[in-house]
Amino acid sequence: MKPKCYNVIIAGGKGTRFWPLSRSQKPKQLLRIFSAKSLIKETADRVESLGGRAQTLVITVAEQVDALVKELRALPRRNFIVEPQGKNTAPCIGLAALEVAARDPAAVMVILPADHWVADNRAFCRALKAAVALALQHDQLITIGIRPAYPETGYGYIVRGQPIGKKGGAIAYHVKRFKEKPSIAVAQQLIGQGALWNSGIFVWKAATLLALLERYQPAIALGLKTIRQAAQGQSLGNHTPRLRAVMRRAYKKLPNISIDHAVLEKAGSEERVLTIEGNFGWSDVGSWAAVHRMLGQDRQGNAGNGKWLGFGAKNCFVHAPNRLVVLLGVEDVLVVDTPDALLVGDLKRSQEIRDVVEELQKKGYGSYTVK
Amino acid sequence: MKPKCYNVIIAGGKGTRFWPLSRSQKPKQLLRIFSAKSLIKETADRVESLGGRAQTLVITVAEQVDALVKELRALPRRNFIVEPQGKNTAPCIGLAALEVAARDPAAVMVILPADHWVADNRAFCRALKAAVALALQHDQLITIGIRPAYPETGYGYIVRGQPIGKKGGAIAYHVKRFKEKPSIAVAQQLIGQGALWNSGIFVWKAATLLALLERYQPAIALGLKTIRQAAQGQSLGNHTPRLRAVMRRAYKKLPNISIDHAVLEKAGSEERVLTIEGNFGWSDVGSWAAVHRMLGQDRQGNAGNGKWLGFGAKNCFVHAPNRLVVLLGVEDVLVVDTPDALLVGDLKRSQEIRDVVEELQKKGYGSYTVK
Repeated sequence: MKPKCYNVIIAGGKGTRFWPLSRSQKPKQLLRIFSAKSLIKETADRVESLGGRAQTLVITVAEQVDALVKELRALPRRNFIVEPQGKNTAPCIGLAALEVAARDPAAVMVILPADHWVADNRAFCRALKAAVALALQHDQLITIGIRPAYPETGYGYIVRGQPIGKKGGAIAYHVKRFKEKPSIAVAQQLIGQGALWNSGIFVWKAATLLALLERYQPAIALGLKTIRQAAQGQSLGNHTPRLRAVMRRAYKKLPNISIDHAVLEKAGSEERVLTIEGNFGWSDVGSWAAVHRMLGQDRQGNAGNGKWLGFGAKNCFVHAPNRLVVLLGVEDVLVVDTPDALLVGDLKRSQEIRDVVEELQKKGYGSYTVK
Repeated sequence: MKPKCYNVIIAGGKGTRFWPLSRSQKPKQLLRIFSAKSLIKETADRVESLGGRAQTLVITVAEQVDALVKELRALPRRNFIVEPQGKNTAPCIGLAALEVAARDPAAVMVILPADHWVADNRAFCRALKAAVALALQHDQLITIGIRPAYPETGYGYIVRGQPIGKKGGAIAYHVKRFKEKPSIAVAQQLIGQGALWNSGIFVWKAATLLALLERYQPAIALGLKTIRQAAQGQSLGNHTPRLRAVMRRAYKKLPNISIDHAVLEKAGSEERVLTIEGNFGWSDVGSWAAVHRMLGQDRQGNAGNGKWLGFGAKNCFVHAPNRLVVLLGVEDVLVVDTPDALLVGDLKRSQEIRDVVEELQKKGYGSYTVK
């Protein structure tokens, strides 16, 4: 039997930076920002040709699982795996690897954050297919690198070494090292050296990852072993009370660590990581300012969803599906309109919305951050 | 019998500069901007001690009369007089003088725009009472002048001459001349010379005004005479079909002219105009920026109606009675929130809202300017 390819959608984020559209009960991956489809539905549909519905897993948290099951109705219920608590991406991806390996010990997994934007879905799938082919051949970790469009300081960078040949139109490279969130000067330098953005999209055999967790992160490997025993060969999507209790206890002991720090950086220094350069238009959609960059703009740089009109407005972004919005002479302004709350902000400061949400909770406006 | 004092409230304006709160069916005078009362209700209540309800007339247009009757329930229905069309203030005030003189040939009338703001209602009434006393003594036109707070270029100025003695705490002066909407340099010069803002609030005997219309504006006087005959001694508030038809025909021939150009400027050059200096806090509420100046502001200069929170916002104004508004890092921004339309604008450009409304009508969004 040919080894299967599993799509693993990581969907635990809250996305408070998209308030007031996002709420604790309506996280970023459920938002309809770029089309009539939510970001997670876009993600699932984008990769259907790779793994298919039966091999698409969603890793999430208890508060979100019902909404996600509803949103992704086509997926089997047992493909939704609930983490007892968020412990960053290393435990999350480890848990997914556990499930994939139980279903098919030779399978390759494609790890996809639920809430990214991709311009060219075909080019995206081509790059992933090349990565899957590479992962089947080599017991290596494949990262999808993005050719940088500008010196973004909020991303991680992949410094690449020698190419290892052309696979399906995409060229793979050895990875020399990773650099997290550089200064602007360092980012410019990295771009000059041909470094790529680290998209957070990874491809590898589940067995390869589990072996490397054993090597680099024995505490995580131990926790996963306990969970595997408690599952007794059942899917982790079938949450029996006993399995839930074991997972809860095991998770308490796991370190809170990203897959980058836990595995990739260490594996990189041992020449176990490759990268494939993707060139398909990509963003992690980190803020409303990013959405503004992605959407089509008018001549004055304004963009938006819904009915809006600019009169001498420049470089503004409007999300207002239900009302007419008129912008008069404002610049760099962000307007997000929801039935109970309205945000009018400086588009350049849209990263600070996360702090605003915290302040709202402190000031007794917490009800505006829930639903 | 002591001559009566009539309050005449001029309520024909549309106030498109207050869109989206104001609509053609909800003009500025009906807006609740400063309190739970509409501007016209504030105006009527403010002067109740002068004329009383039976002597308070409202001059308006057909589209607005039902809403105004409803808003000012305490006034007799026959005190609402409908102009067949707007022809600026001279015909309007002439029509009111006709009605007042028919009811009491010796009466004094106080002309009050429906949509002004006054800070100190008691001081306002003191000034008006002094003006009424003066008007009873002299066949002169009394204007209420306002000590300028800053060199506003959108107002008219009253250049005063010699004082004519103290009346009820307010000092009256002869008026030398009027200056409409000066440049900023001229406004500064005028203020240096002790000129006052022309508030558009006037006090005179109805008979005095009718005589001066005869002298300076024979076309208006002729039109009014036709209307007086058609009324046959009845109130102009009883709109019989015959009276309506006569008024419609007469109005078509009337010039479109302000009381300032039609009478005051001419009377001023013949030393027939006095002014009383009012110092009670006043604004004609010409734009949202004016409302922002009137309302109490926080330390960063933000002000508003409703529930709003500023995070690094400066000098902003919010009108949003029904939702939470969060301002993040914006400056000089105006937010006006209504159920079907939202305006986000540069507060310094709030005068341009009038043009926006015109553009909306041209662009097929006219339904957003009606109700």
